[in-house]
Amino acid sequence: MTIATHIKAKISGSSWIRKMFEEGARLKTEHGAENVFDFSLGNPNLAPPEAFHKALKDTVASSSGNDHAYMPNMGYPHVRKSVAEYLSQEQRVRVSENDVIMTCGAAGALNAILKAILDPGDEVITPSPYFVEYQFYADNHGGILKTVPTKPDFSLDIAALSTAVTQRTKAVLINSPNNPTGQVYSKASIDELGRLLKEKSKKLNRTVYLIADEPYRKIVYDGCAVPSIFESYNESIIANSYSKDISIPGERIGYIAVHPEASYNKELMEGMALTNRILGFVNAPALMQRVVASCQGSSADISAYARKRDLLCNGLGECGYDFVKPPGAFYLFPKTPVPDDVAFVKELQKELILVVPGSGFGGPGHFRIAYCVEDRTITNAMPGFERVMKRFKD
Amino acid sequence: MTIATHIKAKISGSSWIRKMFEEGARLKTEHGAENVFDFSLGNPNLAPPEAFHKALKDTVASSSGNDHAYMPNMGYPHVRKSVAEYLSQEQRVRVSENDVIMTCGAAGALNAILKAILDPGDEVITPSPYFVEYQFYADNHGGILKTVPTKPDFSLDIAALSTAVTQRTKAVLINSPNNPTGQVYSKASIDELGRLLKEKSKKLNRTVYLIADEPYRKIVYDGCAVPSIFESYNESIIANSYSKDISIPGERIGYIAVHPEASYNKELMEGMALTNRILGFVNAPALMQRVVASCQGSSADISAYARKRDLLCNGLGECGYDFVKPPGAFYLFPKTPVPDDVAFVKELQKELILVVPGSGFGGPGHFRIAYCVEDRTITNAMPGFERVMKRFKD
Repeated sequence: MTIATHIKAKISGSSWIRKMFEEGARLKTEHGAENVFDFSLGNPNLAPPEAFHKALKDTVASSSGNDHAYMPNMGYPHVRKSVAEYLSQEQRVRVSENDVIMTCGAAGALNAILKAILDPGDEVITPSPYFVEYQFYADNHGGILKTVPTKPDFSLDIAALSTAVTQRTKAVLINSPNNPTGQVYSKASIDELGRLLKEKSKKLNRTVYLIADEPYRKIVYDGCAVPSIFESYNESIIANSYSKDISIPGERIGYIAVHPEASYNKELMEGMALTNRILGFVNAPALMQRVVASCQGSSADISAYARKRDLLCNGLGECGYDFVKPPGAFYLFPKTPVPDDVAFVKELQKELILVVPGSGFGGPGHFRIAYCVEDRTITNAMPGFERVMKRFKD
Repeated sequence: MTIATHIKAKISGSSWIRKMFEEGARLKTEHGAENVFDFSLGNPNLAPPEAFHKALKDTVASSSGNDHAYMPNMGYPHVRKSVAEYLSQEQRVRVSENDVIMTCGAAGALNAILKAILDPGDEVITPSPYFVEYQFYADNHGGILKTVPTKPDFSLDIAALSTAVTQRTKAVLINSPNNPTGQVYSKASIDELGRLLKEKSKKLNRTVYLIADEPYRKIVYDGCAVPSIFESYNESIIANSYSKDISIPGERIGYIAVHPEASYNKELMEGMALTNRILGFVNAPALMQRVVASCQGSSADISAYARKRDLLCNGLGECGYDFVKPPGAFYLFPKTPVPDDVAFVKELQKELILVVPGSGFGGPGHFRIAYCVEDRTITNAMPGFERVMKRFKD
C-alpha cells in the first residue's frame, strides 16, 4: 500500500498521454526545440494585452502590506463587483457581486461547483468530444460523468441529451467555444437546451443545472457571437477564467457566477463559498484578483489566432484533411484518415509533429491540434502533415 | 434537491462559527471597528518583509509575456530548486527539486497529499486540539479524521497515538507550531513518533505516513527550535506555505516536500502532480512562485509577535486566566473558567471581545485567541477580559 489505489490507476490510465509528452521532450532534445512542431498543449502563445501589464504594474505599485492578507473566501467585494458589472453586459442579465465568487481559474471553479451540488452517484452529462479533465472533476466529488455525442459538426444533439437525462442527473456541463473542437453552440440550441432542462427539472422534481465552462468565450472569429447562458436558463452557473483570453493560465484566476434568479441562488453561493474553502483553494490569489478587476473585457490579440486558424485550415485543406472549420477557441479537430487515431498521431510524430489523439477527448478517429503557436510552426509543419496524409491515402 | 446533502449539512454544522463572525461584523458596525477587539482570525497583521516587496517589484519588472503561461504542474523547476535548497538546510536532509511540488498554500498541499494517499475509509490520525479544517480535508477524499488528545500541556501523547493506529491508518498529521495551542512538539517526541510509525508500518505491512503541516515553523520565540521531521522519519511529507511567516495568506502559495528516501517517493510525487492538477489547482500561481523563490528564508518581524504574546500572557495571567505559554505560532489557548466554552465566549462578546470557542478545535473548555493583531487591541481588551473572568469567579 503506497498511494491510493484509484490514483495509481489514474496515473497508469493516463500514461500514454504522458508518454507522448515525454516523447515530445525527447524529440526536442534530439532534434532541437525549433525543429519540433508542438501542437499538443493549449498554452496560449500570445502575450497578455498591454492592459494586463499596466494593471499588474499599477496594482503592485499601489499595494500596501495588507493587500496580501486573507479576504472573504468569495473574494474581494470590489473585484466581484467589477466582474459582475462586466458580466451583466456580456450575459445581458443583471448580475450583482452577490452572484460571483472569485476562483483559482475555471478548473478551480468547476471543482467548487461540482462539490457543492453532487451527492454520491449523481450524474453530470457532457456533450462529447469533451475536455477530458471533466472526468476527474466529477469523480473527485463522487459524481459520474456521462458523455453524449454531439452531431457530426460537433453541434449539440438536443434529442440525445434529452434521452440521457435520468433521475440521477444533477447537471449538464457544456464548454463553448469548445475544447477540443472549437465549435460554438448556437443561440437556438442553447435556448432549446434551456427549455429541455426546465421541463426535465419539473418532471423529475429535481433541479438540473446547466454549467457553462466558458474560458474561450472571447476567442471567436468572423463575428461569431457566443450566446448568453443566463438569458436561456435560470438554473445556470458559469465557470470562467482569464487564462486563455488574456494569456495568463499560470496565474490561476477565474470566477463562478450563479444566475441571479436561480431557485437556490443563496444555497449555491453559500455552498460554493464553503467548497472553495475546504477544497483548499481558500480564496483566489489576492494580487491577481485585483489585477483582473482593472482589466475587465481586455484580451490578447484574437485576430492573431484567427490568422493562425486560417493558415492551418487552408494548409490542411490542401493536403486533403477533413475537418469542421472552427468559429472559436484555438483548437482544430480533424478526422484521421484511418480509424486508429493513436496510430495516426504516431505517424505525425515521426515528422516531429506533436498533436493529441481524439480518443483522449472522447472523439476517436480525430486528433486535436492546438494552434496557439507561432505562425512559422504551422507553416513549417505543413510538409510533414502532407507527407503523412499521402502515406495513409496511398 | 438543491445542493449536495452533505454540503448542506456542513454549512449548517459550521453555522455557529459563521454566526459568531456575523455577530462580529454586526458589533463592528454598531460600535465602530476600533472598539471591537477581534481575536477571531489567524490573519497576520504584520506587513510582509521588505524582501518580499522587493522580490515582487523585481519579478514584475523583469516579467516577459511568457511568464504567466502554464509551467509543469509541479511548478517551475528553478523555483522548486530554490525551495529544495532552503529546505535542505532547514531539515538537515538533502532535498532536491524532484522532491518538491509548488502548491496553492498549505491547504492546497494537504488536499493534494490526502487525495494521493487515501483510499475510501482510510484513517488520518491527528493530535487534538487541531486545526478544524483537517476534518474537511480528510473527508474530501473519502478519508476519516481520527483525533487523539494531546497531554495537558498540548504535547504529543505517543502512547495514545500508538493505541489509535489501526489497519486502516494511512497517516498521522501533525501541526507544529500548533494552531490553536501554539505548542511546538519536541525533538524527542518527534523521534519517538518516527520510531513508532516505523514499527507500526512494519507490523501492519502498510506504510503509515507522517504528514507535517508547518506554516508556523518560522514563528517561534525564546530561541525555540522546531525539530526536523525528515531527520526523524523517512516516510514523511511536509506541507508548508508562505502565508503566515511572510504574511501573504491571500496569495495562496506553498509547497509539498516528500522525504527523498521515502519508500515510494516516485509514486507519491507522480500521484501528487496528478492530484494537484485534477483537483483544479493545476499549478501554484505563477507570479508568486517566482516571488517566493527570490525571498527564501525571509519572514515578517517575528519579534513583534513575541512582544504581543508577552503582552497577552502577562495581562491574562494577572486576570487569573490559566494557560500554557506557547513557544510558537500566534495563538493562545487558555482554559475557560467553566466547562461551557461557548457560553464563556458569548460573555466575552458582550465586552466586544471576539475569540473562538475551543470546541471548534476539538478542545472544549478552552478558547482560542489569535494575537496577530495590533498591540493596542490586546491592551485595550484587557479590562474586558478581566471583567468577564471576575464575573465567572464570583
